[in-house]
Amino acid sequence: MDVDRNGLQILTRAECLRLLETATIGRVLTSHRALPVALPVTYALQEDSVVFRTGPGTKLHGVDRGAVLGFEVDDVDPVRRTGWSVLAHGEAYQVTDPDELARLDRLPLEPLAPGFFPFLIRLPLQEVSGRRIVAGQREVTLGA
Amino acid sequence: MDVDRNGLQILTRAECLRLLETATIGRVLTSHRALPVALPVTYALQEDSVVFRTGPGTKLHGVDRGAVLGFEVDDVDPVRRTGWSVLAHGEAYQVTDPDELARLDRLPLEPLAPGFFPFLIRLPLQEVSGRRIVAGQREVTLGA
Repeated sequence: MDVDRNGLQILTRAECLRLLETATIGRVLTSHRALPVALPVTYALQEDSVVFRTGPGTKLHGVDRGAVLGFEVDDVDPVRRTGWSVLAHGEAYQVTDPDELARLDRLPLEPLAPGFFPFLIRLPLQEVSGRRIVAGQREVTLGA
Repeated sequence: MDVDRNGLQILTRAECLRLLETATIGRVLTSHRALPVALPVTYALQEDSVVFRTGPGTKLHGVDRGAVLGFEVDDVDPVRRTGWSVLAHGEAYQVTDPDELARLDRLPLEPLAPGFFPFLIRLPLQEVSGRRIVAGQREVTLGA
């Protein structure tokens, strides 16, 4: 098991992708007016990409400019002190190919907000990293 | 009730602060090698600031440079389609004043990772915004 300098288990790309398949809410990371922002979205993992819907707004702005977006998902239990987090980056783009749109339209991507989200965004996971808290690790380390 | 263009309830600063008090895990937003990153931390709300611990690494780098950090907390139930998110920004700094350190040291800020996190960071919530999903809102809007 590879461990980083903070004592967290370093997850492989394959482990990160498996974890991304288990969740449905992630956070798109970008900047807005030069400030870092995180925007929760409903997403699905499709091959090596994350796919989500968006409407005219902040998230699409980044995509229009061809910016690299970040994507973060985590699941932490503060009481049991277990959990994981995955961070990914890629150049997102709006899906416009009719065949691809038809395929992706079947994914369970209903947005959480009631607004109009007509655009499908694909974020290829060009870089993926992840960490897992190893249960009991803190106590072991502190006692060592 | 104020609603944004996506049909989400716009929360007041006071509502955002109340929600920040209910959680213990948030995400520090910054950039690392020009990429947006989100780093889960154990935090506490202390007056109008978020306080968390850190060690030598990415998060502190941003603080050293005097950068504006973002902070995001959310709690979304994808099945019941309810939840909220709060996004904050401020110029974070490392707490070095001995009196302040002694006061903050009593906060429940044990990091999730087993590593060494000797530094206390205070992130004044200079800008705070939040959104809440209003249950049933989506169906009402779609049916209208």
